[in-house]
Amino acid sequence: MEPNFQAPGQVKAAPRKIILDCDPGHDDAVALLLAHGNPDIELLAVTTVVGNQTLEKVTRNALAVGTIAGITGVPFAAGCPRPLVRSIETAPDIHGDSGMDGPALPESTIELDPRHAVDLIIDTVMAHEPGTVTLVPTAGLTNIAMAARKEPRIVERVKEVVLMGGGYHVGNWSAVAEFNIIIDPEAAHIVFNEKWPVVMVGLDLTHQALATPDVVEKIAAIGTKPAKFVTELMDFFAHTYKDAQGFDYPPVHDPCAVAYVIDPSIVSTRKVPVNIELTGTLTLGMTVADFRAPAPADCHTSVAVDLDHARFWDLVTDALVRIGEPGAGDVDNKGNASDVDLNEGAQLTAGGVK
Amino acid sequence: MEPNFQAPGQVKAAPRKIILDCDPGHDDAVALLLAHGNPDIELLAVTTVVGNQTLEKVTRNALAVGTIAGITGVPFAAGCPRPLVRSIETAPDIHGDSGMDGPALPESTIELDPRHAVDLIIDTVMAHEPGTVTLVPTAGLTNIAMAARKEPRIVERVKEVVLMGGGYHVGNWSAVAEFNIIIDPEAAHIVFNEKWPVVMVGLDLTHQALATPDVVEKIAAIGTKPAKFVTELMDFFAHTYKDAQGFDYPPVHDPCAVAYVIDPSIVSTRKVPVNIELTGTLTLGMTVADFRAPAPADCHTSVAVDLDHARFWDLVTDALVRIGEPGAGDVDNKGNASDVDLNEGAQLTAGGVK
Amino acid sequence: MEPNFQAPGQVKAAPRKIILDCDPGHDDAVALLLAHGNPDIELLAVTTVVGNQTLEKVTRNALAVGTIAGITGVPFAAGCPRPLVRSIETAPDIHGDSGMDGPALPESTIELDPRHAVDLIIDTVMAHEPGTVTLVPTAGLTNIAMAARKEPRIVERVKEVVLMGGGYHVGNWSAVAEFNIIIDPEAAHIVFNEKWPVVMVGLDLTHQALATPDVVEKIAAIGTKPAKFVTELMDFFAHTYKDAQGFDYPPVHDPCAVAYVIDPSIVSTRKVPVNIELTGTLTLGMTVADFRAPAPADCHTSVAVDLDHARFWDLVTDALVRIGEPGAGDVDNKGNASDVDLNEGAQLTAGGVK
Amino acid sequence: MEPNFQAPGQVKAAPRKIILDCDPGHDDAVALLLAHGNPDIELLAVTTVVGNQTLEKVTRNALAVGTIAGITGVPFAAGCPRPLVRSIETAPDIHGDSGMDGPALPESTIELDPRHAVDLIIDTVMAHEPGTVTLVPTAGLTNIAMAARKEPRIVERVKEVVLMGGGYHVGNWSAVAEFNIIIDPEAAHIVFNEKWPVVMVGLDLTHQALATPDVVEKIAAIGTKPAKFVTELMDFFAHTYKDAQGFDYPPVHDPCAVAYVIDPSIVSTRKVPVNIELTGTLTLGMTVADFRAPAPADCHTSVAVDLDHARFWDLVTDALVRIGEPGAGDVDNKGNASDVDLNEGAQLTAGGVK
Repeated sequence: MEPNFQAPGQVKAAPRKIILDCDPGHDDAVALLLAHGNPDIELLAVTTVVGNQTLEKVTRNALAVGTIAGITGVPFAAGCPRPLVRSIETAPDIHGDSGMDGPALPESTIELDPRHAVDLIIDTVMAHEPGTVTLVPTAGLTNIAMAARKEPRIVERVKEVVLMGGGYHVGNWSAVAEFNIIIDPEAAHIVFNEKWPVVMVGLDLTHQALATPDVVEKIAAIGTKPAKFVTELMDFFAHTYKDAQGFDYPPVHDPCAVAYVIDPSIVSTRKVPVNIELTGTLTLGMTVADFRAPAPADCHTSVAVDLDHARFWDLVTDALVRIGEPGAGDVDNKGNASDVDLNEGAQLTAGGVK
Repeated sequence: MEPNFQAPGQVKAAPRKIILDCDPGHDDAVALLLAHGNPDIELLAVTTVVGNQTLEKVTRNALAVGTIAGITGVPFAAGCPRPLVRSIETAPDIHGDSGMDGPALPESTIELDPRHAVDLIIDTVMAHEPGTVTLVPTAGLTNIAMAARKEPRIVERVKEVVLMGGGYHVGNWSAVAEFNIIIDPEAAHIVFNEKWPVVMVGLDLTHQALATPDVVEKIAAIGTKPAKFVTELMDFFAHTYKDAQGFDYPPVHDPCAVAYVIDPSIVSTRKVPVNIELTGTLTLGMTVADFRAPAPADCHTSVAVDLDHARFWDLVTDALVRIGEPGAGDVDNKGNASDVDLNEGAQLTAGGVK
Repeated sequence: MEPNFQAPGQVKAAPRKIILDCDPGHDDAVALLLAHGNPDIELLAVTTVVGNQTLEKVTRNALAVGTIAGITGVPFAAGCPRPLVRSIETAPDIHGDSGMDGPALPESTIELDPRHAVDLIIDTVMAHEPGTVTLVPTAGLTNIAMAARKEPRIVERVKEVVLMGGGYHVGNWSAVAEFNIIIDPEAAHIVFNEKWPVVMVGLDLTHQALATPDVVEKIAAIGTKPAKFVTELMDFFAHTYKDAQGFDYPPVHDPCAVAYVIDPSIVSTRKVPVNIELTGTLTLGMTVADFRAPAPADCHTSVAVDLDHARFWDLVTDALVRIGEPGAGDVDNKGNASDVDLNEGAQLTAGGVK
Repeated sequence: MEPNFQAPGQVKAAPRKIILDCDPGHDDAVALLLAHGNPDIELLAVTTVVGNQTLEKVTRNALAVGTIAGITGVPFAAGCPRPLVRSIETAPDIHGDSGMDGPALPESTIELDPRHAVDLIIDTVMAHEPGTVTLVPTAGLTNIAMAARKEPRIVERVKEVVLMGGGYHVGNWSAVAEFNIIIDPEAAHIVFNEKWPVVMVGLDLTHQALATPDVVEKIAAIGTKPAKFVTELMDFFAHTYKDAQGFDYPPVHDPCAVAYVIDPSIVSTRKVPVNIELTGTLTLGMTVADFRAPAPADCHTSVAVDLDHARFWDLVTDALVRIGEPGAGDVDNKGNASDVDLNEGAQLTAGGVK
């Protein structure tokens, strides 16, 4: 049974409210599509930050993805154009010159919110009930760190921070550090040391989220423009990940964090103290996890360990099916809009949806 | 002749607009009184930040000083309650438990601006003509760093940053680091590495600004409540500086930065590259100045070297004379209010004013 | 078939010449017994260095183990009493106050060589043919680093360095660092960066070398004084490892390095660049291995990955059986002394020897 | 009156026994000539270490200087060819490709001692009475550190370590670090942290030891081959120091340390804790001196502050006069050989000798 479909008679849980802080980015795009298309997620805001490319480029990309997905009524805001302390480092070898090379991008139909992302994050968290908003950063943590420093009250108000970044035994930008952390290690240090729950969905996990040929085929079979957009992203991503890091199939990192929010049973985690190395010569930006003993009672960090590959990709496929063809006059397809009944879902044929 | 009084017939220069970012703090209090009382300064805003004591305490102190000085029409805003990355470190051994021990403090008659200090700084800089606003931080640089990161356009818009902090050959919180820098070295790194002009008024200079007995006597002779407040501050400061650091007379750091803005001829400076050490075991937070060669053409940092002790204290005394007894119904005594004529200044008799 | 016994008709390979540099230490004692008792090892020298306890204590312990084992004709020399740069850190919580608490120790019948361990290492390596001597450090790397710096020619002359220390994904003295490395990280940096082959037998491997009850029983069944000595060591070791690090059975690290020299098929390894972190706040002394890509052709470091637990302990048991009762007038039982024939080995009944 | 000549009737003090550990090096050459020619110094040994150039080159240079000076009966030994941890860094921009460019060098008539410099240092210190041997390192501290680690007893046996290196307020190889320290900061850390008295004759002092034209003229006027050799050294040194560091006249660092041993009244010092920065990004190898408070009673480090320029150069000139023309059949001219009477010294006319 599809995990995000309810059995008849069950009371439907309220969708999880999230703020997606991203730097699209091929996998950020998939994360945004998953967050938008999945009925268990209520997307409160999309914020951007320098990372895979400059702030200008990733913001344009985010708006383009929002346009492709047909997102309306969700504020998009741009945030920090550079890391706190370090110089800007982007990832053109993985994401291309535009930050999202591959597919052609439409003109955005979404207008950027005038607020700074940091303020939008703060305003959004403070405007909702305590314990209801999850932050989902899939980029460097500059915006989140700035928000926590500017308005410390968000720390106890946020439900949890589910971030894509780091790796307890795997690195990509150095032997032991991951891109999202090493590009702004001071920001990461801030985020990991605040006392909110932090779930680190790192490379240990996301290197399991490979866009294998069968996955890409299923997505292609959906036949919609958003699905085609994803396959084009994956095609480019596959080539750069092969060339730059020797991967047979590209790891699609960012939607794993969204998947965990949707259904934690898809991503097993382990509670363990994690901190960020700031002065190491070989280890700068490492997410140092201490597995030597059972985590202490007040441990507020955990790390993602194992991915249910099939169910993860089913979630992605399902979201794309639900999104459909946004330009074709379809209604709001979010589960929280209560207009998607189970039968509709059951009739869908693509992906893992039976 | 008093340096900040114009000779008859001279065209009066526009006063320098400053934002004072402080953590009162005994010497911050003097800096605020100097900035308020001196006719060549237009105080645009007063912002506070954790430092000598907690944000709550230093903000209360700032409002109290503003009340004693009779400041009206100037926004006061509270900023960051903790440094960017490091834990909070305060200086009770120097400033006491309240952060400004010694004199009794009045209830504040000033209402705190609802904005965050970071936003007030940004708003103020962006609302004035480029090149007209000087930032005068006399505390840890958390607020200034946050503002530069949140709104990078302030960097080219600010006239210069004249900060009290650091020391090229002198330390106080460690062998080679000064308190304002070491409590938030990452913020200092941000501020010193932005391309605005930075004048570092460090311990090399401020250890020349001793409140010697003759200085304190002159201030006492003014006879006003604000002057009495300053002598009480100096009395406490003298004891803690003697006990904690072995000084015969206390160094009154922060007004030196304001004095430089008023009249750069009182504080000689040297252009030299300065950067902040972030990883040193013995040198964390050191302001590393490179004197080996003439500063390159694009060097944007300079360090204060020599203080004209007499003229510096004359400025302070003069400001106190001008402030008078704020509660006694006196009018705005600021030069920029155009209601202080030169003759009035010339008639003052206390301090260094002849 | 016992791996270190030859099949009839095979040409017997020359035993591997090793210098054991150690800090006994419970597991060092087992390593020394294994090196002495195994016929495929020719023990050229035993050197000691500060580590589990002070140099004085570990040297006394080494001599006592040598006495128990009946070692003759092998020079024992003491080396460095402290690490290169850092202060002395010992491990009394694991090894007790003596460094080898548990069994009673005999008076040593071995006289200490007058040479410094560093000189003995250099002399020994330079006196043998190039490529014939393997260094087996099972302690901090101070002696080895000093030797490499004092006589750089040993680097190309040594066959390889097979060391117990480090861990690519496991730490014990910190989240990511192991005791032998972190007590003298600069020495480790020296050893890992010289161009000799380095095999790191780290915690990833040695945490598989548990002295499980069946192992201890087999050793006890041998019934000799050296075997009893080992069981008493294991008994103490089991308690401290339980108390200090929560292990059910103690990991017997050091003989794993000797076992690799005897028979590399017992310890699988992987070629990977490894370097030592010297400046990390959380990662000081980490053995940073870079698994991101296939090791380059000139990679001279490898790490131990998987242990054949049964064959490892068989080696240990077999060595104890061969050592017998040294005080009972038995002759030199080393294979290299050519007086141990295969039949004798085949008649042994204890341990893994059938 | 020449300071190192006794007044008639005074009891002559025993000459100070020193080991000169050097990397000639233009100024090392002058240091060696001063040590040899001055009657108050008994040169026990000359050891070399990588620094200004490779070990091979500086050793050849040391032997050549010894030959020019006519040194006999003093062992010369080569030491470490590379720093403890860091890669080799030499100073060809200052000392040329040979390490002592400028004058032509003679074939050496001195045979290198077969011992390693580290052993020669240890042997020499242990062979003399405690408290009688001063180590005078004028290069990187690798040899001295190795000796202290290999034979810790030398630490309490050495009288003091008077080293050229570092700078409390001056750097040359970085903004705050000096060449001799930064090329092997770990060795410097070892030397400064052992409890022997350490006198740091750093750049603060040696930048006062300029070879001004009048000094060079006086040396030239001596008219001997060694004197001519020195003027040729100074000529080359003047050009490189002008080109590389902008000096009008070259600072002749190393003989300052020897001068301090001869007559401490020529080099004023201040007792202050000094330690070596090992992890700073901007401050690696800085000799961090803590001037904040009076040095504690157990402070064993002091720094050179002021040089008596005239008396310093008089010492150098006097030594050259005493050396004379070694190849011209002159006898041992060392005061400790008891064959130089005061009248002879008084008859010398060159340099500062009246």
